[in-house]
Amino acid sequence: MMEKEKLRDFILDTFYFRHACKEFDPEQKIPEEDFQLILEAARLSPSSFGFEPWFFLVVQERSLREKLLPYAWGAKRQIPTCSHLLVCLARKSYFMRWDSDYITYMMRDIQKLPPDIQELKRQRYRQFQEEDFRLLESERAMFDWACKQTYIAMANMMTVAAMLGIDSCPIEGFHQEKTNALLAEHFQVDTEKFGIAYMLCFGYRVKEPREKTRQPLEAIVKWF
Amino acid sequence: MMEKEKLRDFILDTFYFRHACKEFDPEQKIPEEDFQLILEAARLSPSSFGFEPWFFLVVQERSLREKLLPYAWGAKRQIPTCSHLLVCLARKSYFMRWDSDYITYMMRDIQKLPPDIQELKRQRYRQFQEEDFRLLESERAMFDWACKQTYIAMANMMTVAAMLGIDSCPIEGFHQEKTNALLAEHFQVDTEKFGIAYMLCFGYRVKEPREKTRQPLEAIVKWF
Repeated sequence: MMEKEKLRDFILDTFYFRHACKEFDPEQKIPEEDFQLILEAARLSPSSFGFEPWFFLVVQERSLREKLLPYAWGAKRQIPTCSHLLVCLARKSYFMRWDSDYITYMMRDIQKLPPDIQELKRQRYRQFQEEDFRLLESERAMFDWACKQTYIAMANMMTVAAMLGIDSCPIEGFHQEKTNALLAEHFQVDTEKFGIAYMLCFGYRVKEPREKTRQPLEAIVKWF
Repeated sequence: MMEKEKLRDFILDTFYFRHACKEFDPEQKIPEEDFQLILEAARLSPSSFGFEPWFFLVVQERSLREKLLPYAWGAKRQIPTCSHLLVCLARKSYFMRWDSDYITYMMRDIQKLPPDIQELKRQRYRQFQEEDFRLLESERAMFDWACKQTYIAMANMMTVAAMLGIDSCPIEGFHQEKTNALLAEHFQVDTEKFGIAYMLCFGYRVKEPREKTRQPLEAIVKWF
């Protein structure tokens, strides 16, 4: 464990270092072990009920990146120049419904829960989906809920990257339907089962960002 | 900057330390400066277009925590025992629509963009909301989109807490409408403008968690 004062500085430095990088140095590649650690941060991220509603494509082939380019506005410079381009997919109802095979697999083979606990958890999960969040009413509500979890992995990947001195840029700005059609055609994504949540570029900045702007803490926190 | 090998270990230790804590030691309080750092991680988190669609309530009064208790199943032990209880609200259309006063305020007074850039950004934001994500079609789609951003702040708060040796537990399991009604009654929340995104408890564990379970990296990543 680091000394407390140093740790505080390191944490603040990390959050000030991270910004939405507009252009990366195309010559600089992220070391393999650093990128693995970024992926590990995603893998170890928490998710609702621990059901990991994500899947990640790492797109390094130039020709495939070029296909994504027309659909990712605001990222024209990032996609060609980044060291690593990640596309995060979120799992749809096919996987995430309380009665799916995937949920059974997660509880039985990954979480290794005893059968009676599996059943209890499934019923709680069902109540959560049916009553509390009314997720079963539309595929969109279900998908948006899965996407929320993928943003936890997104944040952790960006923060770990920043801790390693690696820049990133998240991309939400794409036409969802067209991008999904593209993923089906060129990435063998079954869009009945997965949809795109976001893209995330990693690499090294070519210039310093403008100063970070945020509302002050008093404007966004209230104590009771 | 730490030596590379130590930093890697520190990052992995952080992610293995974090778990959904089931019960906190009611006697142990988080030092003020640590909790401020956790809030700072939320404040410095990125959001779509930098519009910070979040607001945080910190609920320390026993009587108010008790009011939340009946609606947060799965958190019966966490809410009374945690050192700090945070309720994250997401901003609704009232704030987040492309033509709102809040968006003007964010671009002009916080981001301090020149007027012509404000206008360009507003039009891009409008296109994003109208065409790419079709957020304007329903209040639910708009709210879910705002909620996604709040999960970035959630992840960063949990990760920073873990770096400081502080445990956490996110709570999604509550009846949305009933909880919002409660927030309106006892927390002066205008539920036309805000809705609950999640709760997040912080404190110190009373016992060690069961071993972390996750799918292996090969099951969730594909390279192209």
